[in-house]
Amino acid sequence: METLKRQVWEANLLLPKYGLVTFTWGNVSGVDRSRGLMVIKPSGVDYEDLRPEDMVAVDLESGRVVEGSLNPSSDTRTHLELYRAFPALGGVVHTHSPAAVAWAQAGRDIPCYGTTHADYFYGPVPCARQLTQAEIDEDYEKNTGAVIAETFRARGLDPAQVPGVICSSHGPFTWGTDAAQAVYHAVVLEEVAKMAILTREVDPSAAPAPRRVQDKHFLRKHGPNAYYGQNSG
Amino acid sequence: METLKRQVWEANLLLPKYGLVTFTWGNVSGVDRSRGLMVIKPSGVDYEDLRPEDMVAVDLESGRVVEGSLNPSSDTRTHLELYRAFPALGGVVHTHSPAAVAWAQAGRDIPCYGTTHADYFYGPVPCARQLTQAEIDEDYEKNTGAVIAETFRARGLDPAQVPGVICSSHGPFTWGTDAAQAVYHAVVLEEVAKMAILTREVDPSAAPAPRRVQDKHFLRKHGPNAYYGQNSG
Amino acid sequence: METLKRQVWEANLLLPKYGLVTFTWGNVSGVDRSRGLMVIKPSGVDYEDLRPEDMVAVDLESGRVVEGSLNPSSDTRTHLELYRAFPALGGVVHTHSPAAVAWAQAGRDIPCYGTTHADYFYGPVPCARQLTQAEIDEDYEKNTGAVIAETFRARGLDPAQVPGVICSSHGPFTWGTDAAQAVYHAVVLEEVAKMAILTREVDPSAAPAPRRVQDKHFLRKHGPNAYYGQNSG
Amino acid sequence: METLKRQVWEANLLLPKYGLVTFTWGNVSGVDRSRGLMVIKPSGVDYEDLRPEDMVAVDLESGRVVEGSLNPSSDTRTHLELYRAFPALGGVVHTHSPAAVAWAQAGRDIPCYGTTHADYFYGPVPCARQLTQAEIDEDYEKNTGAVIAETFRARGLDPAQVPGVICSSHGPFTWGTDAAQAVYHAVVLEEVAKMAILTREVDPSAAPAPRRVQDKHFLRKHGPNAYYGQNSG
Repeated sequence: METLKRQVWEANLLLPKYGLVTFTWGNVSGVDRSRGLMVIKPSGVDYEDLRPEDMVAVDLESGRVVEGSLNPSSDTRTHLELYRAFPALGGVVHTHSPAAVAWAQAGRDIPCYGTTHADYFYGPVPCARQLTQAEIDEDYEKNTGAVIAETFRARGLDPAQVPGVICSSHGPFTWGTDAAQAVYHAVVLEEVAKMAILTREVDPSAAPAPRRVQDKHFLRKHGPNAYYGQNSG
Repeated sequence: METLKRQVWEANLLLPKYGLVTFTWGNVSGVDRSRGLMVIKPSGVDYEDLRPEDMVAVDLESGRVVEGSLNPSSDTRTHLELYRAFPALGGVVHTHSPAAVAWAQAGRDIPCYGTTHADYFYGPVPCARQLTQAEIDEDYEKNTGAVIAETFRARGLDPAQVPGVICSSHGPFTWGTDAAQAVYHAVVLEEVAKMAILTREVDPSAAPAPRRVQDKHFLRKHGPNAYYGQNSG
Repeated sequence: METLKRQVWEANLLLPKYGLVTFTWGNVSGVDRSRGLMVIKPSGVDYEDLRPEDMVAVDLESGRVVEGSLNPSSDTRTHLELYRAFPALGGVVHTHSPAAVAWAQAGRDIPCYGTTHADYFYGPVPCARQLTQAEIDEDYEKNTGAVIAETFRARGLDPAQVPGVICSSHGPFTWGTDAAQAVYHAVVLEEVAKMAILTREVDPSAAPAPRRVQDKHFLRKHGPNAYYGQNSG
Repeated sequence: METLKRQVWEANLLLPKYGLVTFTWGNVSGVDRSRGLMVIKPSGVDYEDLRPEDMVAVDLESGRVVEGSLNPSSDTRTHLELYRAFPALGGVVHTHSPAAVAWAQAGRDIPCYGTTHADYFYGPVPCARQLTQAEIDEDYEKNTGAVIAETFRARGLDPAQVPGVICSSHGPFTWGTDAAQAVYHAVVLEEVAKMAILTREVDPSAAPAPRRVQDKHFLRKHGPNAYYGQNSG
């Protein structure tokens, strides 16, 4: 538990380091599936004041706080819903990083315009739909996660190949095999979202990268035939 | 008085810290309503040279300097007018932060495109009209405040729910329960203004967030049923 | 002479401090009219390697180097021409700051969209025309200055009220009563150019600030009735 | 060899210093033509962890690693192909700097809008075409270099006068007489690409700089009659 708390604490501190957050507008969680627990940032606490022991542990099933004296992030039930829907996730991040928010506020998928995107996201970054009034009233945060899961199911997307989403009028969620990788993907998403806006400034009718280029780049870094980095042949 | 001077001095130093000002293009004030005094930055002095004792105290009623050897900010009479018009204000900020200025120079309200905005501003950030020649000649700075007050009155806006405004061809004023919160809202306004410009770059015809999403986000952080942060249930 | 060299050296170091230059893409000069000398940055030397004694002194009349072992800036003859054409100038700056360059590359005056601009530039920032082939062949750098002077003469502009210009397909020159004020105006011009681009992103058909607002802001900071800062009544 | 490794290591560290890279998204190589060797960054290693001895030496002819225990950059075969095609190159850089990527993703040459560009690139920065499926399947990285070489050959461009290229849907490659100069050109290309986007925001139909201005600026810094800097007459 202390190890996970420390990992989640360190991952939260990466958000200001990479310029992804203003004030407390972001949160990172990590999961220990063997113990059925999620650890997450407390709500509304400045990153510079955070200590590892401030991280809040929540039961993955019931959503009840099992350790920690502070309120967990107000987005806690969204994180829980994502861990339940996507069994491979080890970490989840939510931010309001500006370029990703811009695409979310425009309600549009981020097209895969090039290899920077294709190296990490296989196809466009999907934009999840608005919640209905009934979904907001019932449980806004939980249903934010449920609508993300619905989006992946309806489009047949694999969350391991598309490690993030943008929510209409809201902003991005990203994930990974642990909290640190989820932050890595949050940085990638913001960078890709910014490049996509600049691409549209050069040519508003720019086309996505050809499918063959997307395949080449994603698959040279992921899957059985990957050859990028120091862990491959 | 020394406490208020120190608070206002600290809040002024937050402006360069958050990247909101170039040179001396911004000022923060705070008020002590029990003593009928406003404390504000002196005019044209660099932030790095400011000392708490340089802050200038001005009578809220008469506008006369009651303590301090330097000239108060040239925007002093605008601050005074806002404190008179809006009794709940404890602090006021004026900056020329670039994205908020861009909306002001375009003469347009900043639409509430998403939850980042709705978390702090309930509805669009209003753009106050140009002053007439007569208003400029009579008292430019005082009437800048008067036109802001007119804008809120005419539109039926509550300054506690819309903690800022942009003035046509000019720039933003924000406020809060004290000087520090007024600066917080200045940071939010600039961030929201920047995101709104990026949103228009993705889609110039982007629509505001649905009313139900604006309600949900503003009210989960404000009012009797708020549940964000560590002070709520 | 040593005093002027030190002032010009310090002013050159402000260029990287304010983020106005990449590599060596900028230069500042200052003038001593009583001695008929201009002091300027040497050509192609990194700011971090510059020492006060590296500054090059040039005769204002003949353009010959009178002190210094390094080649003066390749823009030297442009600076000289500006000092000759505008007797009130004490310092001149040239940079390739990106937003000002963008307006220069588009070949357009920067409209006075608001008070940030009107506080320092009275009316639009003019864009000087392209040089002819004959002007380039005769003396490119000298004629760059001559075309700036022609622009001010033809439009009836006062260089004390419009302390800068952009040159078509090239970039900005600014000036002031000394080298430090010329740098101050270079910062203002870049900020104003950036805000003007953002304004056009909000509304490509945005109108300039009303003349009455431009008058009010310029004249409350300049001229006999100024009341901004600590030097006025 | 140790000297070249150190030069290439230092040049790689310039990439984060100049803000050109996120994570490990860039690489620099240098060549020793007398020994037929190229030295390049290892694949997927953080810049802050890099040591000179981590640089990987590769045979220029065969592409085989001849010194170093880490995998060389996944872009190694592109670098090799450029050294083979362009005998004057001493260093090569690849990054995903955002403005240059935007032009690459839009599939457009970067027009020479002004003197900042003309000082270093003689004419537009060319955008190389997409690879075919057959070229990707045969050898993606090698053929990326081959298509760059084809672009320069087909357009009659001199790589010493146009020290970089953007590859469709991908990003920039730049080069120079050594690794450090290749990085210098990567910084110039990103700055020029950013200015070109801003220029289009001011006026989407902006025209390139007149040919006479491009000639003047490129030739005053390059070739037998150059007179910029401290090495010329």
